[in-house]
Amino acid sequence: MQVTRRTPHIHQLSSGIQEVLLSRDTIRSAHIRPSLPTPRTQLSQAGRCAAQQRDLTINQLDSGRDNRERVVVLGSGWAGYTVARQLDPRKYQAVVVSPRSYFAFTPLLASTSVGTLEFRTALEPVRSRRTKVNFFQGWADAVDFENKTVTIEEAVDDSSQGLARTTYRHAGETSAQRAEEKKEQAKKGRLFNLTYDKLVISVGCYSQTFNTPGVRENAYFLKDVGDARKIRNRMLACFEAAALPTTTDEMRKILLNFAVVGGGPTGIEFSAELHDIISEDLAKLYPELIKFHKVTVYDVAPKILPMFDDNLAKYAMNTFKREGIHIKTSHHVQELRKGFPQGVDAPPQHDVFTLKIKEEGDVGVGMVVWSTGLMQNPFVAQALNGVPHLPDSGMRVLKGGDQEASQVNWVVKKDAKTGSVITDDRLRLKVEAEGEGQNKIEAVLTEVFALGDCAILEGTAYPATAQVASQKADWLAKRLNKGDFDKAGFTWKNLGVMAYIGNWKALLQGGGGGAWNNISGRAAWIVWRGAYLTKSVSLRNKLLIPTYWLINWLFGRDINRF
Amino acid sequence: MQVTRRTPHIHQLSSGIQEVLLSRDTIRSAHIRPSLPTPRTQLSQAGRCAAQQRDLTINQLDSGRDNRERVVVLGSGWAGYTVARQLDPRKYQAVVVSPRSYFAFTPLLASTSVGTLEFRTALEPVRSRRTKVNFFQGWADAVDFENKTVTIEEAVDDSSQGLARTTYRHAGETSAQRAEEKKEQAKKGRLFNLTYDKLVISVGCYSQTFNTPGVRENAYFLKDVGDARKIRNRMLACFEAAALPTTTDEMRKILLNFAVVGGGPTGIEFSAELHDIISEDLAKLYPELIKFHKVTVYDVAPKILPMFDDNLAKYAMNTFKREGIHIKTSHHVQELRKGFPQGVDAPPQHDVFTLKIKEEGDVGVGMVVWSTGLMQNPFVAQALNGVPHLPDSGMRVLKGGDQEASQVNWVVKKDAKTGSVITDDRLRLKVEAEGEGQNKIEAVLTEVFALGDCAILEGTAYPATAQVASQKADWLAKRLNKGDFDKAGFTWKNLGVMAYIGNWKALLQGGGGGAWNNISGRAAWIVWRGAYLTKSVSLRNKLLIPTYWLINWLFGRDINRF
Repeated sequence: MQVTRRTPHIHQLSSGIQEVLLSRDTIRSAHIRPSLPTPRTQLSQAGRCAAQQRDLTINQLDSGRDNRERVVVLGSGWAGYTVARQLDPRKYQAVVVSPRSYFAFTPLLASTSVGTLEFRTALEPVRSRRTKVNFFQGWADAVDFENKTVTIEEAVDDSSQGLARTTYRHAGETSAQRAEEKKEQAKKGRLFNLTYDKLVISVGCYSQTFNTPGVRENAYFLKDVGDARKIRNRMLACFEAAALPTTTDEMRKILLNFAVVGGGPTGIEFSAELHDIISEDLAKLYPELIKFHKVTVYDVAPKILPMFDDNLAKYAMNTFKREGIHIKTSHHVQELRKGFPQGVDAPPQHDVFTLKIKEEGDVGVGMVVWSTGLMQNPFVAQALNGVPHLPDSGMRVLKGGDQEASQVNWVVKKDAKTGSVITDDRLRLKVEAEGEGQNKIEAVLTEVFALGDCAILEGTAYPATAQVASQKADWLAKRLNKGDFDKAGFTWKNLGVMAYIGNWKALLQGGGGGAWNNISGRAAWIVWRGAYLTKSVSLRNKLLIPTYWLINWLFGRDINRF
Repeated sequence: MQVTRRTPHIHQLSSGIQEVLLSRDTIRSAHIRPSLPTPRTQLSQAGRCAAQQRDLTINQLDSGRDNRERVVVLGSGWAGYTVARQLDPRKYQAVVVSPRSYFAFTPLLASTSVGTLEFRTALEPVRSRRTKVNFFQGWADAVDFENKTVTIEEAVDDSSQGLARTTYRHAGETSAQRAEEKKEQAKKGRLFNLTYDKLVISVGCYSQTFNTPGVRENAYFLKDVGDARKIRNRMLACFEAAALPTTTDEMRKILLNFAVVGGGPTGIEFSAELHDIISEDLAKLYPELIKFHKVTVYDVAPKILPMFDDNLAKYAMNTFKREGIHIKTSHHVQELRKGFPQGVDAPPQHDVFTLKIKEEGDVGVGMVVWSTGLMQNPFVAQALNGVPHLPDSGMRVLKGGDQEASQVNWVVKKDAKTGSVITDDRLRLKVEAEGEGQNKIEAVLTEVFALGDCAILEGTAYPATAQVASQKADWLAKRLNKGDFDKAGFTWKNLGVMAYIGNWKALLQGGGGGAWNNISGRAAWIVWRGAYLTKSVSLRNKLLIPTYWLINWLFGRDINRF
């Protein structure tokens, strides 16, 4: 494999070095430096001392750079992790910044949430012996496009690592409070700056709750491995609580009533996996309880699995019906609260929840798994807004409009509906003139890329899926490695959709669109397992996944809770 | 295999049924009934209603009894789990009551705490398809020997499940407060009674902290799988925090300073496993940090591994020295607190700890793993004390002394030094007359057995190890199954001791006592691995354990934290 080596534009990339926030004599390295959100003139003496003290660097990161461009990748999901590990280490120093230290192979999370697979088989660490990817565990907090700097809030001790996020971590703080807090964090070394030559924004999305009261606090999500772990422990605890001699049958019905909100692939696959562990394993371990259990999928839409053809969605509906999983479409969840439904006169023996459904009233449940899609990442709204000064280099005006580029108040271009950032077909971040108007001046930042669920390729309606994210990542890494951005833009190749529907059956819809492309049942299940085994990243997991499939088929799923 | 079937003594076992705490009309089942700690005359109307409501039973447990004796086993460790799963289900209905729903194969916990093995490979669920063992997740709270009833506090939602315990869960409550709380718990169905025909007390011990200030709150223990999980996450977090660009070298030295307190097998094996993951895996993933790390074992005694011969202990010392693990014997830990040692002028960037050593002063550490032996289980002190009335049946007076059996205030006989209960050589619980004196009347409860770390066989000094506990359990299950208690008493067969000392080396000391029985190094390591693989309980784990040994040898240990 021949890769053309280009001399990195070090001369142009270091243009921001003079523009440091701290006085130069405190700076030992311009590439990683403590971030203080206030202009240097406002720096108190105490702040200055603290800043000096915190002004540190990983010498290895700079000295190991060896004339390579630094590509800072924000996020370690399908987009970010895939780009970072594919970058040619001879050309680029890849630095991943993410609040979690691993990549989660999301299609297997539903399996891990019931123990069909172990949690770790769905994880790949960002740090690895094979890839030369550097990693800092932290949240991107701000981006300075002019100085090519990202401000990072470290997140090593974040106890919510691995859990779906539903709110901005600094929600509730005013901007003045946040600025004050940033000053404190910088003093403590919890905030630092990292310069980049190229930036990849792939921060992903949060879980959507539509602000339904109580959902954020009481629902179980299924977006990351910590969520899967919580679900597994909770589901098993519901059975164990139901098995206590003091638990009434009425309470058992509530504890073992599992609701899934959202009829997309995640909700459907989780329901299927839940049904599997109950019918294959828990029925044998808790034979006296099995009559009390119930699994119900609620969706606000009139059908489930909207991305599948009608006949496949119907096949899934019928399979679920036969297996006793209830599907309630056109149902509206209004609230999820702790405690019993009104009218249940029971002592507070166990934690249970009440789901308020517009069409049904109060329903007592043991667990609600919530999967109603994506909410825009607050980083996009908080950090990617106005661009006071565009960089001199790494910017290209696309259409002149009526304005002079230097006179324009630039803002990051966003999708009006989703709030996602917009890229051109080279996945480069678009900026535009602030304000309303049709014929606005537009530009691209040629060294800032955005992909994954937080970004939309302008003019496309590609779905927010792992498939699109990883194809974009593959494309971007290839272009960066070859330096041939002029060749052709990115286009998504629809490889179809798959969903596991339980009892060793799956749905499979080819990307071509023809009906002959669709398979369902056992054959589709074999393809489903084969595909995910093939796609799983490391050889380690390629060996462990079939091992667990076999072991759990032979001996049943592990029911230990800890 | 022929097993003689005996008719269970149902007639004598049901003697306690009339003595229920609640009026009979509220009792649907005498075998599992709600417990109220107050005499029935004090029951308020509200309490009575709640009691009625909570007066439930698992019909399956009673109806599935089929004339078999019920053996209630308290605890699911080496003693309890082993007895329960070996009881002949044709003769006995085994019911395990334990605050955790699994058995932990403790010799592998150190391996799981660094990821040499996965957590679940050291666990076996009490509920299993193969054994017919019944299980309630709860704490034994009180025992009524006369009515053959155990009061159980349910523990399904106990968030400390899987963590070493250092204090009584109701510590700080006065007995009046606890009595009031028990009334509340009974109303809520969180407290219930379970009758037994035979009782096995195998509740184990807690972790000893010697009340050293701050240890309970800040140390990491290694007694259960939740502890192993905490250690694994913390150790990896220390490296990740040290890798941040704002972390000073001084801070790195503290974060990566790991202290182990206690030079027994657990402390030594953990140090060895920690050294392994650092030198084999983390050195490759964090090459720039490896110079900062340090592992130190502190012990108050002048030597480590006191159960090993001097030459083996010395071999371990020398091996550790060569590998850079520091052993500090005759050192006294006085305190463990959060924060920096005095004199370190650093911002509170990361959580660190300060260990105060009498001989060294303050030492900044990233983690302290505490393993200084066992503390008596508070259940023994709280629940096994005076015995107001001994049962009419199931009691045998051993020596008459000067007193008349019916005139005696009986108490459970305990070891003065450790507070353990005392058994005869049939593992039957001993009771004696209250008060001082040499020639006291003694008796055994012939249907109450005690084994594991909470019990001492009178006149022996068997160590509190898994080996003794499981041998006692094997012996007891065999006697119960065969009904041949008269045959011979229990004697421990010392099978020797083993310890892993890192870098594919182990110590092995035969039980015979001859020096030719001792092996150290690689050969001992092979025996060590073989022995634990053979002893691991389920076929599932017998397959998974070597799989992980192989996978982790090929690809390195998994470093994902969640």
